[in-house]
Amino acid sequence: MTAPGVEPVNAVIDAGGAHLPGLLEQVEARLREIAADAGPPLGGWATATIAAGGKRLRPLLVLLAAGAPGDGGAGAVRAGTAVELVHAATLVHDDVLDAAALRRGAPTVWATAGREAATATGDYLFARAFSELAGNEDPRQAQVLSDASSALARGELLQRADAWNAAITMERYLERCDLKTARLFEAACVLGELNGVAPAAEPALGEFGRRIGLAFQLLDDVLDVSGPAERTGKHRGTDLLDGTVTLPLILAREADPALAALDPRTIATAGEAERVCDAIAATGALEAARSRALSLVADAKAELPADLPEAQRRALGLVADGVVDRYA
Amino acid sequence: MTAPGVEPVNAVIDAGGAHLPGLLEQVEARLREIAADAGPPLGGWATATIAAGGKRLRPLLVLLAAGAPGDGGAGAVRAGTAVELVHAATLVHDDVLDAAALRRGAPTVWATAGREAATATGDYLFARAFSELAGNEDPRQAQVLSDASSALARGELLQRADAWNAAITMERYLERCDLKTARLFEAACVLGELNGVAPAAEPALGEFGRRIGLAFQLLDDVLDVSGPAERTGKHRGTDLLDGTVTLPLILAREADPALAALDPRTIATAGEAERVCDAIAATGALEAARSRALSLVADAKAELPADLPEAQRRALGLVADGVVDRYA
Repeated sequence: MTAPGVEPVNAVIDAGGAHLPGLLEQVEARLREIAADAGPPLGGWATATIAAGGKRLRPLLVLLAAGAPGDGGAGAVRAGTAVELVHAATLVHDDVLDAAALRRGAPTVWATAGREAATATGDYLFARAFSELAGNEDPRQAQVLSDASSALARGELLQRADAWNAAITMERYLERCDLKTARLFEAACVLGELNGVAPAAEPALGEFGRRIGLAFQLLDDVLDVSGPAERTGKHRGTDLLDGTVTLPLILAREADPALAALDPRTIATAGEAERVCDAIAATGALEAARSRALSLVADAKAELPADLPEAQRRALGLVADGVVDRYA
Repeated sequence: MTAPGVEPVNAVIDAGGAHLPGLLEQVEARLREIAADAGPPLGGWATATIAAGGKRLRPLLVLLAAGAPGDGGAGAVRAGTAVELVHAATLVHDDVLDAAALRRGAPTVWATAGREAATATGDYLFARAFSELAGNEDPRQAQVLSDASSALARGELLQRADAWNAAITMERYLERCDLKTARLFEAACVLGELNGVAPAAEPALGEFGRRIGLAFQLLDDVLDVSGPAERTGKHRGTDLLDGTVTLPLILAREADPALAALDPRTIATAGEAERVCDAIAATGALEAARSRALSLVADAKAELPADLPEAQRRALGLVADGVVDRYA
């Protein structure tokens, strides 16, 4: 676990999830094992990708949605591992397409070993995700993960189709966020439910996952404009330089004619991107975007199923809050 | 079915596989359905990828290895579809890495829509392969496909690691062919067996698939040197221009000191590549490589399990011969 994720996990454990640290550690161990399994040279890049880590928010959601996990948690651990592998695979492929030198401040596989290595690493992690999940012997689960993976591919594509187009609509932006982020959060929750002690016949936590996933993406896009860079590991305005138009700019263009007239292609340097970030911030768009994300989180919590055990409700609520707190 | 695959299929049907055309058509229909399912714009590229087709040799192997397929063939059709989706996904990703403008004479997704589109198309087809197979409700099958997919990624990587290195050993070359081609043929056979009317407890046809897969790759590499270009849809010596050192050159270097001294990086034009192809052919390396492939096919046929029904043995033998005939 890296720092930003630790607080919600600790709070969640305090809230009654004493079984969580052990299960999260099992997910970690399995991720390391699968990465190393590829053998040299692929294993090295897969290991670096997994080690670069992140918050393991998706496995945490799987474990929490499982409630009291059945089978000593083995099924939920496999599902959490599988979801994180799909997430990692997507990031490695994204770094190739973005020609991204750094992720979380560490050099990407693309930067250290080239696009061939990064493409193969992503394909490997992807394939292993599905074999890991196959261990749960439940075709519904493979279907859920596959649907989310297809959505990721479509979302990534939408982002590239819309690149440099400052005039994209809010609806289109939200569709992209749904596909590229929210659906995997949704899948994490559904997979968790399918691995509870009494597996859900009708998973009910998917919508919760989808909403906090959407909020997560919105806040991520706010953070790219607001900084600080020490927190994100990249310059402010990286999305602008990549031609990725996000909610802050969409909202700011309505308020500031100069921003509305701006062609993103003319933003050529980190300094210029910072100045555009300042102009966006001056319109109040960051607060508006943040507030939209906060109401998504509030809705997600409010609409948790009524029959959910109280400890599980509290734990999921804390994770939802954790998504917000990271960006406070 | 495109032309090169038709002959073995027809022969196989004559040999007693009257159920085959219907099942192969079901695989085709399902492939088209899954591709279209992605919606625009991804669906268009996925459809083009599937339509560009190829021989559907892998689904054919699945169906034949299933023998009398159980469940009206539904399980074998799903497995055949899944294997072909993985194959198609790999080709799309390879075209990105190779910056290949044409495949089978048709423009690649990479060439028409860019690497973002091609990467996402591959990821989509990959994800759908596993959800398709999940319909068979057998975790062993997901494991088999995932292992083969991991092998593909490792093989692709090995090829790039060895690029431009004329001094690679025969062992290393064979390992690469095994990973990038033979393992998926092996998986096709095993998946077929797991979907027979009496699913195999111990699949026995994997080695057959692996051997003819290896032969297939060896012959493909011979064809790149021998041509003719009308048959392959690409210039002779494309592998040489890509820095991919294959069996003909490995063998020819032992016989011709000028070839042994040649640095592949100095081959800069299609004309130069053709001249190197001629020099390779002059050493007899093409016959030697072809003969190695032929003995693999002969071994594969000779070592088919003794208890295999005669009609199935004959049909599999015809496919094995078909692999060779394509290159006769």
